[in-house]
Amino acid sequence: MFKSVICSVGTSAAKNLSGIPPSALENWVLEQGGIDTASEVMFNSFKDKEPSDENLARYLSAEIHSLVRIGIDKGSRILLLASETIDGQACALALKKYLESYWKGIDVQTKKIEGLQVQNADRFRQQGVINFIKEAIAEIDCHGNNVILNPTGGYKALVPYMVLLGMIKSVKCNYIFERSTSLLELPPLPIEFDRNQFEVHKELFEQIERDSSISKQDWGDKVSYEDRSWFEPLVEEMGDNQITLSAAGFLFLEAMQKPAKKLVSYLSKQAIKDCFENIATLDNRDPFRYLNQVSKSGLNEDNVHIHTDGLYWLKPGRTTDRYLVSTEDWRLLVWRVIREDQVGKDYSTKIKVDPAKERNEYAPFMRMDFVT
Amino acid sequence: MFKSVICSVGTSAAKNLSGIPPSALENWVLEQGGIDTASEVMFNSFKDKEPSDENLARYLSAEIHSLVRIGIDKGSRILLLASETIDGQACALALKKYLESYWKGIDVQTKKIEGLQVQNADRFRQQGVINFIKEAIAEIDCHGNNVILNPTGGYKALVPYMVLLGMIKSVKCNYIFERSTSLLELPPLPIEFDRNQFEVHKELFEQIERDSSISKQDWGDKVSYEDRSWFEPLVEEMGDNQITLSAAGFLFLEAMQKPAKKLVSYLSKQAIKDCFENIATLDNRDPFRYLNQVSKSGLNEDNVHIHTDGLYWLKPGRTTDRYLVSTEDWRLLVWRVIREDQVGKDYSTKIKVDPAKERNEYAPFMRMDFVT
Repeated sequence: MFKSVICSVGTSAAKNLSGIPPSALENWVLEQGGIDTASEVMFNSFKDKEPSDENLARYLSAEIHSLVRIGIDKGSRILLLASETIDGQACALALKKYLESYWKGIDVQTKKIEGLQVQNADRFRQQGVINFIKEAIAEIDCHGNNVILNPTGGYKALVPYMVLLGMIKSVKCNYIFERSTSLLELPPLPIEFDRNQFEVHKELFEQIERDSSISKQDWGDKVSYEDRSWFEPLVEEMGDNQITLSAAGFLFLEAMQKPAKKLVSYLSKQAIKDCFENIATLDNRDPFRYLNQVSKSGLNEDNVHIHTDGLYWLKPGRTTDRYLVSTEDWRLLVWRVIREDQVGKDYSTKIKVDPAKERNEYAPFMRMDFVT
Repeated sequence: MFKSVICSVGTSAAKNLSGIPPSALENWVLEQGGIDTASEVMFNSFKDKEPSDENLARYLSAEIHSLVRIGIDKGSRILLLASETIDGQACALALKKYLESYWKGIDVQTKKIEGLQVQNADRFRQQGVINFIKEAIAEIDCHGNNVILNPTGGYKALVPYMVLLGMIKSVKCNYIFERSTSLLELPPLPIEFDRNQFEVHKELFEQIERDSSISKQDWGDKVSYEDRSWFEPLVEEMGDNQITLSAAGFLFLEAMQKPAKKLVSYLSKQAIKDCFENIATLDNRDPFRYLNQVSKSGLNEDNVHIHTDGLYWLKPGRTTDRYLVSTEDWRLLVWRVIREDQVGKDYSTKIKVDPAKERNEYAPFMRMDFVT
């Protein structure tokens, strides 16, 4: 299977440069004449070490070790995200040279992430982490389920954010550390956030993203006292009485703005009756299980039977239950659920709903999460 | 404010023992005659370094540096969770001696975590991480919101699990790394998992926890194909065709078994009508906001007005709306919502519900999450 691996890059590619401690690496790069020449010298220090078990453990960097255990091949794509420090970038370039020389034709990209450094915590959080996440999201948008996050190399402080990114974007994390040879795998967990709650202030978050920040005063005016504890972890205070997005806030907003991978079903008043008093009482029909499937797969030519004016009639295989639905961002609104054997073959002309005019008669749409 | 800090412990307390690389530390401990004497020698190597800014950055360990930035005092409690390696334990003991000598009276506990090591990834995940989480949860159960998780020291591979623990248990993570002097703070995020979905196989998870594992065959038989993708990250395969709980599975199960910190409101058929067709149409009354408040605070003498036979009448301050509710594990079931000005002062005798006998008339209870 095609693999796209996003690696945070540290400085362990420099470990064969004897006598240079990590703290002196920046100077060493300067002494070599800059990033390009330094990366070449660094590459030369391990280019002859084939990726064998022994070399991986002794001479090769954390990134190479983990990529081999992840099982990359010539068709893989590797995104090496380096800190803004010159030693970090020299390491990333040396890694690129090594990967390209042992896996001919592999697609390796290196990127310098502005703000990713460990001297200034505010810049790290407000720029470094956010820029790292943006690059990773662009990759995930292209390669979806084939993406693997690999936090083996790079700053330990970045690990929590990579975990969070993996959770919100449903991407797995694979990592290893130097003294072990096996891979640890953190699968994407079935974790969610309350989108309905976020929506209350989605526009405010869009404003903060657009303007980089808003004043504390403005935040206090717009977010009610009751909502504050929910929203506070999603922003952070900057020095000058301004509020900006936290990494989590950025991720939540991004998830809200993207077309939802998974819909959430909401049943109209009438659909609740339809389901519980009619369909669910039939043998072998479980409308809730069916709607859960549709939520996961989205609307497509396999389940949509008839489509008119933004409303869709869904038909689950060779059954008589039919579902009149629409979508609204990440919500699947279920207006009616009927039986063709009761209403007749021309159900779609007999049962008409005008979503704009009749919404009040069908609302509230309650989330399909219940106990009987 | 009282602080209880849970620290993963690494080996940076040994950094003043000149000439001993991390890989040789285990042997060094043996040469000293064991953990106790080694910890004393190690303590002597930094006991004279007061926790000043310069010493924190240069001579003192990652754990001490981060604890000072977290702002501990004599009244704090520090739980040092060490790996099962003798060098890890020697470091933890040396840290304890230091903390006790500079913060007289501080409560410092060290614990050896079986399975926490980096040679064997399976043992790390299946024993080390789970045992670490158990110790941390016991601490969180005692000290709740005062707990801070501090992954500054210790294995990088443990960081993702500490982040996950913080999210599920709503505890913040604070950490620092050696080259910076400021603290990074990861607040508890408003993230949740679908408890209704987990409940489908809660008993199976309890069985796995009780018996340590079940056969793959048994898992395949009991968890339907549709449910599998949701549940799979919560278990992991062991070598011998057995399935055991993953760290996430352990955390989810634990969260389900504890009395819920926050209830989730579910409205009966009748309560949906009561709310939307009656109460919510009144000026200044928002039954949903009120129920959200109750969900957060739980039932208590401030909101419960009358209590009979497992049912509670809730009264929000000086208003006329009254809520007939019961609790079921983590759910707040709302049976009726009425207005005293319509029903009369003797509403609790007029409106009677027998939860056992009349449940069918009130069900389904739909989660209070809707769109109008």
